Parts: sequence; C-alpha cells; structure tokens
Amino acid sequence: MSETPPRIGALPSGPRDAITDVAGVTVGHCTLAEGAIQTGVTVIRPHQGDLYHERVPAAAAVLNGFGKSIGLMQLEELGLIETPVALTNTFGVPAVAAAQIRAALAINPGIGRELPTVNPLVFECNDGHLNDMARMVVGEAHYRQAHDSADATVAEGAVGAGRGMSCFGVKGGIGTASRQVEAGGRAVTVGTLVLANFGRPSQLRVGGRALGPVLAERLEAQQTIAKPEKGSIILVAATDAPLDARQLRRLALRAGAGLARTGSVFGHGSGDIALAFSTAYTLPQDPGTPMPAVAVLHEAHLDPLFEAVADGIEQAILHALWRAETVTGRNGHTRRALTAILPDWAALPA
Amino acid sequence: MSETPPRIGALPSGPRDAITDVAGVTVGHCTLAEGAIQTGVTVIRPHQGDLYHERVPAAAAVLNGFGKSIGLMQLEELGLIETPVALTNTFGVPAVAAAQIRAALAINPGIGRELPTVNPLVFECNDGHLNDMARMVVGEAHYRQAHDSADATVAEGAVGAGRGMSCFGVKGGIGTASRQVEAGGRAVTVGTLVLANFGRPSQLRVGGRALGPVLAERLEAQQTIAKPEKGSIILVAATDAPLDARQLRRLALRAGAGLARTGSVFGHGSGDIALAFSTAYTLPQDPGTPMPAVAVLHEAHLDPLFEAVADGIEQAILHALWRAETVTGRNGHTRRALTAILPDWAALPA
Amino acid sequence: MSETPPRIGALPSGPRDAITDVAGVTVGHCTLAEGAIQTGVTVIRPHQGDLYHERVPAAAAVLNGFGKSIGLMQLEELGLIETPVALTNTFGVPAVAAAQIRAALAINPGIGRELPTVNPLVFECNDGHLNDMARMVVGEAHYRQAHDSADATVAEGAVGAGRGMSCFGVKGGIGTASRQVEAGGRAVTVGTLVLANFGRPSQLRVGGRALGPVLAERLEAQQTIAKPEKGSIILVAATDAPLDARQLRRLALRAGAGLARTGSVFGHGSGDIALAFSTAYTLPQDPGTPMPAVAVLHEAHLDPLFEAVADGIEQAILHALWRAETVTGRNGHTRRALTAILPDWAALPA
Amino acid sequence: MSETPPRIGALPSGPRDAITDVAGVTVGHCTLAEGAIQTGVTVIRPHQGDLYHERVPAAAAVLNGFGKSIGLMQLEELGLIETPVALTNTFGVPAVAAAQIRAALAINPGIGRELPTVNPLVFECNDGHLNDMARMVVGEAHYRQAHDSADATVAEGAVGAGRGMSCFGVKGGIGTASRQVEAGGRAVTVGTLVLANFGRPSQLRVGGRALGPVLAERLEAQQTIAKPEKGSIILVAATDAPLDARQLRRLALRAGAGLARTGSVFGHGSGDIALAFSTAYTLPQDPGTPMPAVAVLHEAHLDPLFEAVADGIEQAILHALWRAETVTGRNGHTRRALTAILPDWAALPA
Repeated sequence: MSETPPRIGALPSGPRDAITDVAGVTVGHCTLAEGAIQTGVTVIRPHQGDLYHERVPAAAAVLNGFGKSIGLMQLEELGLIETPVALTNTFGVPAVAAAQIRAALAINPGIGRELPTVNPLVFECNDGHLNDMARMVVGEAHYRQAHDSADATVAEGAVGAGRGMSCFGVKGGIGTASRQVEAGGRAVTVGTLVLANFGRPSQLRVGGRALGPVLAERLEAQQTIAKPEKGSIILVAATDAPLDARQLRRLALRAGAGLARTGSVFGHGSGDIALAFSTAYTLPQDPGTPMPAVAVLHEAHLDPLFEAVADGIEQAILHALWRAETVTGRNGHTRRALTAILPDWAALPA
Repeated sequence: MSETPPRIGALPSGPRDAITDVAGVTVGHCTLAEGAIQTGVTVIRPHQGDLYHERVPAAAAVLNGFGKSIGLMQLEELGLIETPVALTNTFGVPAVAAAQIRAALAINPGIGRELPTVNPLVFECNDGHLNDMARMVVGEAHYRQAHDSADATVAEGAVGAGRGMSCFGVKGGIGTASRQVEAGGRAVTVGTLVLANFGRPSQLRVGGRALGPVLAERLEAQQTIAKPEKGSIILVAATDAPLDARQLRRLALRAGAGLARTGSVFGHGSGDIALAFSTAYTLPQDPGTPMPAVAVLHEAHLDPLFEAVADGIEQAILHALWRAETVTGRNGHTRRALTAILPDWAALPA
Repeated sequence: MSETPPRIGALPSGPRDAITDVAGVTVGHCTLAEGAIQTGVTVIRPHQGDLYHERVPAAAAVLNGFGKSIGLMQLEELGLIETPVALTNTFGVPAVAAAQIRAALAINPGIGRELPTVNPLVFECNDGHLNDMARMVVGEAHYRQAHDSADATVAEGAVGAGRGMSCFGVKGGIGTASRQVEAGGRAVTVGTLVLANFGRPSQLRVGGRALGPVLAERLEAQQTIAKPEKGSIILVAATDAPLDARQLRRLALRAGAGLARTGSVFGHGSGDIALAFSTAYTLPQDPGTPMPAVAVLHEAHLDPLFEAVADGIEQAILHALWRAETVTGRNGHTRRALTAILPDWAALPA
Repeated sequence: MSETPPRIGALPSGPRDAITDVAGVTVGHCTLAEGAIQTGVTVIRPHQGDLYHERVPAAAAVLNGFGKSIGLMQLEELGLIETPVALTNTFGVPAVAAAQIRAALAINPGIGRELPTVNPLVFECNDGHLNDMARMVVGEAHYRQAHDSADATVAEGAVGAGRGMSCFGVKGGIGTASRQVEAGGRAVTVGTLVLANFGRPSQLRVGGRALGPVLAERLEAQQTIAKPEKGSIILVAATDAPLDARQLRRLALRAGAGLARTGSVFGHGSGDIALAFSTAYTLPQDPGTPMPAVAVLHEAHLDPLFEAVADGIEQAILHALWRAETVTGRNGHTRRALTAILPDWAALPA
C-alpha cells in the first residue's frame, strides 16, 4: 500500500507540507506509550518569544461543543492567545492548564498580581478506548517536555496527544499540512494541524471517494468496532496573512468544510473545535507599548485562504490516518492502521 | 444524459424525495420570467394553520453572514417562527416582508396593538446576473401567489425564487429531497429544500467526484464566466422529530456538512444560511393557552438526523442543478443547464 | 418643573451633549403627526460621504432580540455598516429598507451586478399605542427626507421615529447625549442616541432614584396604563476612538449597563438592541483600494469608553423623557410628558 | 452601622433570602485563611442526587469574557450541567476541575469509556491582591470538603471562594438572596448567589445611591487603592420554574441588569459571567431513560422572573459587601469591610 494518501486540491504546499511552513510556528510532542497508558501532549507555539507579552490574534469556531477544551471564552472576548496551544486527552486538561499557568508565572512572576492573569488554552479529545484515562497520568512535566521539544519538524500519527486517538474505527492522531495562495497580491501560507479522533467507519471519504462502507465491512469482520463513536477533532490553522480576530473566526469555520469532506457530520458526541491564529503581527500585553498599525487583508481577498484551510484540513486528516501505526492499549484494545485494513484502497471502487 | 443525479448516501427517501415528505409541509412558487426579469418568490409553509398563533420551534445557523435575510434575531431569541418561510431575490426582501406583515394582519388585526408584533422571515440570494434586480419588481402580490399555491408537490430548478439563480457557473435554483431515519426508537423524516446560488465552476463535486475542473474548462471555452462568485445558498430543513430550538440549531449547522461536500467553502461573498424547524408540536402565541408538554428527543439520538440532513442537503443541491433548465435574462446573460454542459458526467474521470 | 433632567456621572459632555459631538456625525428626522398617524423616521449618518464605498467599523449587541431590526447578520459577519442608520416603527421597516437600497443604487448603479449588494440597516420600535401602524404609512420618501435633512443639531423627544413612542407609561422618543474621556493618552468622544419605547411605570429610576412607584400610582389614578409593556429601545453609540468591530461590540454591550440603571430588566417583549460605530477610519468597498493601517486602541484603555457609553445612554434616555411633549394619537390614546406627571420629581423621596 | 443593607425592590424573599430557598439547592464552602493564603472553594449543588446521571437544564451569559471559567462550551451546546457548580480563585481552576472529574469517576467509573466524559464546571475570580495565588494551594481535597459540607445554610462574606475577593476597593466575597414571584399562575422562586470581586470604589451605587465618590475619597485618604481594577464577578441564579436552556440564557443575561445597578459597567478586565439553572426537572444521561415531558413556562410569563433575578443579584451583591469582614493577606494587604469605611452610609447624601 502506498504510504502517501491522495493529494487534496490544486493548491501548492509549503516545503514541509506542515503547519510549520508558517514561519515561526513550531510543534512538539510528549508521547506516553506503555501498556494501558497510550496518550500524550502536543504543543503548538505560534512564535518563539514570550507569548504572554507578545500575543497573537486568534479566534475559534465551535462546530460541535461537546468537549472540554478551555480558554475559549477569553479568546472570544479579546481575540488573541497568550499561551502556546496545547492538545491532550480529556482528563489531562487540568494538569496541562496548571502547567501553562506555572510556565507563564516562571517568566512573568507578576501575573495575577500587578499583571493580568494568563489564559490557559488547552484542547482535548477522548482517547479512552486505548488509554486508561481515569488514571489521569498526564502531568505538568509532560506539557513542559512537549513545549521544550518544539521545532519545525512535525511528527505525525500516533504521537503526542494523538497517541491514543481513534478515527473512523482505525488509528487516528496527529496530522498536518500546508497550502500556499496569493491573497490581495501577496503570497501567504495557511498551515493546518489536526488531532483526529472522530468518525464511524462507514462515514469515511478519501478524496471524495466513499471508502466507508468497505472499511466498515472489513472492521466488522474483525469485530473491531463495538461502541458508537465518542470522538472529537481539534482543527488548528495558522497563517502569516494579516488577519484580525473577526477574520480569523471566519477562517476557522472553514476548517469545518474540510472536515465535512472526510465524512464527518459533526456528530453529537464529537467535540469539533477549530482554532485559527495569525503570525503577521503581535499584540502587546503592556498597555504602554504602542499597538501595531496593521493593514489587515481586505475581506474580499479571503476566498483563497478559505480554499487553503479547507484543503489543508482535509489533507491533514488524511495524513493522520496514513501515518498512524497500529496501537494496542487498555484492556488489549487495538486500533489498527488504516493502511493495514485498506492496503488496496487505491484500487477500490469509490 | 441522465436526468437523475447520483443518489447520496444509504438512507431511504420519503415518497416524494421532497421537503413535503414531512407531513403538513407545503411549498409554493411564484415565477417571474420575461426578458430581463428572471426572478420570483418561494414559500414554505410548516403547516396549514395560522402560524402566528400556532408557532413552530425553529433555529438558524449562519455559515456565512454575507446576506440580507431578515427575521433571524427574533428567531434566535424566541426559538420559533410565526410566518411562512419566504425566499426571494436580495432586493425583493422588503416587499415580501411587507406582504408577510399584511398577511398576518389580515388574519389577526390586533397584531401590533393588543397582540405582539409579527416577525417576517425572508431569505434571499442575489440573482443579479440573470435578473434586473434594480428594477425591484417583486411585489406583495407575488408573495401571496406563492403562498396560496403551496401544496405537497414541489417544482424544482428554475422556478420561484430559484428562477434567476446561478450555481457553479451553471443554472441553479430550487432543489429538494428527504431522508428517513430511526431516532430514539421512532421513525422520523428530515426534508430539505435549497435555494442554490453559490459556487465557482472549479469547485463542483458531485457525489464526491471533483467534476469542477472539467466544468470550469468547458465553461471557459464558452466564455460563460467573467466575474467572481457573488452567490449564496439558503438551506432549509424540516423534520417531524420532536426537537427544541437548541437542538434545531445543531441540526441546521449540519446542513453545512452537506453543502461542503458539493465543493463549497462558504465563500466570503456568499450568504450561507441554514434554517431548521420541527412540525412535531406548536407553541401558542396566546399566553393563556397551555404550553405543550413535550418530551424532546434525547440528545444522544441526534446522529441519525445529522446524517439525514447532510445527505438531504447534498441531494437537494444536486436536484437543483439537474432539474434547472437553461435561462437567458438581463443583457442576454445565459446560464446553461449543468446537464447541457456535462452530458457525459457519469463517464468523466473523478 | 425643571426642563433639565439630572446630570448623569462626572464625565464632561461635548458642546452639544449630542451624538453629533462626534465629528462628522449628523442626524435627521421626518415626523408624521396627524390624527391616528404619529410616527416617523430618524436617520443617523456616520459621515457625509458615500457610505457604500467608505464603510465604517461597527458592531451590535442584542440585549433582547424580540424585535424586527434588519441588517444585523451581515453587520456581525463583516463588522461594518455601509448605509446610514435608520430608525422607524416596526411595520415601517420594509419601506425604509427599500428606500436604503434605492438610495444606494442611485449613487452606485452597479450594486447587485458588478458590485456587491448593499446591506440595509433599519432599527425599529412598536409605536402601535399612539400610531395606527397597520396603515403602514411610512414610505420611501420619508426616509429620504430624514436623510437629507440630517445635520449636527439633534431634535429630541416626540420627533422622527420617536414621534409615537412610549416609555415607562409616559411619552418617550428620541434622546441624545455625549461624554468626553481620555483613553490611551488621547481625547475621545462617545456620542449616544436612543429611541426609547420601553419600561413599565413602576420600574422608572432617575439618576438612581426609584421614582417608578410614584409614577405608577399617578398614572393609575389617571387610568392611563391598561396593557403590559410591548416596548423596545434602540441604543446607538458613536465614537471617534479607533476601535475595531470586536471592540465596538464590547462597547455596544455596555449600553445595556446604562439602560439597566434607568430601571429596565430587558423585558421579554422589548427589542433592546445596541449599535456602536467608529468614525476614526473607513473601510473601502473596493478590494483594489488599500486598507487603512490602523493602530486600534489597546484593549486595556477601554474602561473610560465603557463608563462614557453607560453614562451617555442613561443620560440620553432621560433626555428623551424630559424633552418629549404630550402626544395624542390613535383612538384618542394619549401619552403625557413625564414632566406633566412628575413636575415635582426633584422633591420626591427616592 | 446597620448590619443590614438596603432591601432591593418590592418582591418578597424566601425564608432564608438565599439561593437555597430554591428547594434542593445546597451550598458549601472550604475556606483557607492563613497569612498570605486567603482563598477557598465554594460549591453549589443543584440537587442531592448524581448530577452526572440526573442533569439539570442550564445556560450562561457572558457579560465580559475576560476570565478563565471552564465548562461553558459544552454547557452552551447541550444546555445542561452535569457536575456541581464550583467557584474558586483563577489559578485554582485546574485543581478543582481535576477534583470534579475524579468525583464523577468515583460514582461512575465508566465515564470516558462506555459512558460519555464529564464536563467540569468551574468559575473563578482573581483574588491575587489578598491571596498569594501563585502558590496554587487550592487542591482537590478543598473541593471535596466544600462539596461534602453543602447544606441549606449559606455563609456569606469572606468565606469559601470569597475569602480573598475585593469589591469596590473594600472586602467582597460571597452574597446570596432570593425572590418569589408568580409566573404563569404558579409561585416560583429565583435564588441568587454571587462571588463579588469587581468595581472601582468611585463606581459604587447602593440601592441607586451613588456612594462611590465618598467611598473613593475615604479610601484614598487611607491610601488603600493603588491599582486599577482587575476584578470579576460570578453571578449564579437558580429557579424552580420550568425553563429550558434557551429561556435560562435569557434569565442569566438579566443578572447583568442587577449588576449594572450597583455601578458596574462590565469593566474590560472583569470576567463577568452569569449562570442560570432550573431544578424543575432533570435530563437523563442514559439515552435509554425516557426524557421528561415538560411544559416549559410560556415565554410571555418570563418578566416576573427577570425582575426577580435583577433584584436578587443586586441584593446578593449588597449582602456580600455588608457581610464581609476585614481581611489582611499577602504582603500585609488589607481589604476593609465596607461597613468599617462607611458606617454612616445611611445618612450620606446620595
């Protein structure tokens, strides 16, 4: 079977076909994989500086709010993020949030006293099928490890927060991609990263081809799927285009178009949350620091970015599926790699 | 070429494969087609009674708010609709709203005095390519005509509000479909109706197959497309499942999943608005009338409805494309039927 | 009785204590007052140019969405307004919207063809107690008249859209005010204008003093109040501070704080809608025109503006009450001036 | 000085004038008060059963989203709460969330496996002036202690989560109240509880009287206030009226009217979050359990509840101020009791 999934759309990718094609963005993982513990933490850093002081514009779109991600309320009010973006399992959120607070305090001890408090931003999916979530093993050190290891190379598949995730009844996890477009006369990049943990097997569509029924049939023959989906997907988009928070919310929503093309209908039990941020400028925490005078992109030039994020998200989901290895975890539960179930996918009827 | 587009998904349709498969729902059109005037009004009636007094639960999801639809603010606050659902062109909204007010006053003259005011609900797309919108010919009588002709048979294609609409550079308009599912142990129907006026040719996907590039190439050869898209789509879903307004908003949002599968990325200039209503019970206007004691569907049973609305919307869009005839209007502009451009669609490579 | 209501807060006003203290803003009225017709149109023009091409950033906050105002969906999506702000009675909305479309077309005939459509922005309250709304006499000419007469002098009370409005069981209507503050080292003005048509008599608070019970008692003695409130209030704030749409939504919400201080609890049947716009810069319609490079105000400097809008709205409501004359309209219904009922207000116990 | 603040409005209170006048609701505190640690946890239990399985309808209104409360996204999507409501300091949120997860797992070990995950619901204010938040001493045991001690008696002032809070430059904390009204022919109770930590001294209004300037003057003379406000307020309303989530959101928003009357303009740095829940019925977690057939209150009967929540919130804030004792904490910082600064408040000019 080909290690390479179909390529989505006609737009070119950046050199890495990864979210780190947006200059300055880095990604790190901490993976926990031992017996019934199959989980981890993934961190996306919008830039290498002190995010608390040099915040970036951002916005989220909630496609389905069945989820426990935190930090979205202040994100909506202020239109910016002031910590790295952290991904983990559902019950790991408190520890990672605590780690983000402590990390910010370590750099700026005045936070919560003479400085405003800091807003942790943690997204999650439920990896309880493979991982013994109830043991709540994710700790503050795992966040720090993921954070400190962040660089421009993005490992994909069953790594970091993606370690224990399932997708369409097979192994899911981390995927990333990028697309390059011209918008308003300038070249811009949209990078995407997903934590894919959603979908029933019958729903799968690959590049428009409904492979779900075959996948479902084969998995059923193996008695792999017993329970209805309780998944989720976290969709992250980064761009170097100068957008403000309102425009970034529009961009984030279009991640849902890419998600839908893979077969999702934003299931009831799936926390489907999209985040978009821009690296084009930073917003100072200090009220005494001058604000940047930004000429944001004219609204009428957004369409190429909308195409880019939809294609990039669809591509990132396929990357997650294609690059995830088979994992066995809690109670001997196994999620097999898609490529192991559908080695003949390219030859199957659509 | 086959008159029949591909069938979407595995769920069965109702007897008409139309929104009127939801018992009590009727649809009527008034079509204006003469020279530079190619437009009209379409009315969806949730039931045959007095909607002002017997209101139905409803909610909207705004996928992209570049549009002039009216009535959404009160719909969101109260979670119900109290007039029929009207569709027309962008500049026809005021006349249709006035007609709705006058129609409600004719039945209940106390409205705005001892009775609360009535909330007009009018959705629109821009048919300015084929129709001389600036002449603002849609009048109150056209709304009444559409309303009074409503029945269970739904004409599709270039009729009613769909008369002048374009979609993927070819002729768009009205399409409808239905799907039947079991939810929480009961059989329910989801009916859909679209006013399709969106999409650039290159984006078209039919049942997952990317026919857009071929379509774009052939249209370009004919010099049909000169301008960037300024479209929109109105997505309506009706169901007999007992849902409340919050659940109907969740349902409405999933119309976007079906839309995305046809190639849309909810373009910047496209007003993409989804409405969902339930016919399972009515809400009295009169505070003295007892409220219905409703056992709404348990949230965990919504997934089949989500599948149904996504499939039904995708199907309705294909119906609009397949059933729309070629129309020539303002300045000799022509939008050809998709079936005239891609008669060989079934044989094309995906 | 004093013609002057209590002064609210400690912030200074601009020279006119009116929304037109924000440079460039003008206001015009068209008043219809004959027998059973007691209504009108009020227009606020953010600047004197072509708003379709030189749009201004804006946002709304819906405190209670029981209302029929139009234009809010696109306002939320794009964060700007591209027509003057129009106020009228509930059933006058369609005619005024049609007038706005036609006025925009008169200047830019390509609208809806090669240019994007225009978004009418009309707010309303129900003046059905004094005005025979069902006759729907407001016409397009009345909008044009209000628009063309706009200047920096703002008539208050029973004028324009305020002609037939009621407030706390007495005569309501148009009120305006302004406040000047320093924000982020610069002097800025916040101007306010209300269309006041809300409140039951017992709720009235004037500068914190609960005059409602006395007012209710005196009105009851005169058998003036027979029906529960079906009011509304439109709250408009203008500022020359450089804010973006997200910040303007925050500003708009604080209009609710001023409203609450007058006794309102945002009643169920009251459409309480706040709009805020900035005149500090304009946003071009033409995608080829360079966007302005704006340094918006640092978020941490917003508090003085929040104080200003709350005080300014409370003040504008008092102005509406104090400056409205007694009006008799439909069926001989009369709303008396507050000053006629409470000439001794200053001496009353709080 | 009177121990009793002014009584707000004319509506009667329940027997305790506390949120626990809503039958079944209980409140517990855990207070940490030693040197630089002045903080705690407060828990509100909507009923005594297993909230995970017997969930209650609920909704939130975000007046100002500068805050780190968690659980609001799923609350908005599903319209219910499935854990007790917890209040603590900003940096205590992760520990309390972890405690809520573990408490739910202790009762239902299948959570996150065969059962859906649980949604922690934690609200917070910043008590960093008096409390050394950076030490992050709040632990899981403190949540359990507050939870297990919950009963119908509500301690107010500098207790539980209110221990370290400041309000208008004096000591704030926990306050509660209740109001009884007739709505739609039935007697219902609205109970309120606040965690008050907002306001600059000059803003204070007590029963409409602007005591802020005098308060500010006296505090300045004592050099008590050095920094701009970085406060917040959490506003909780409980009712036994049968409301659904949409109606509860409307109710929650009216908490803002009561808050505004005390002088707040929902300051930029203040996380002002309102939560409302109903105890009239429960919503089963198990999809196999029949849903309740509920006749929710007719919308037109909501106004008495809106009055009740506004009055009840204003009253609860005054209770918090009047019942809070002087506290000295971190770095010797002291917040004095309002009654110590304004013993003569009743005699002061308004």
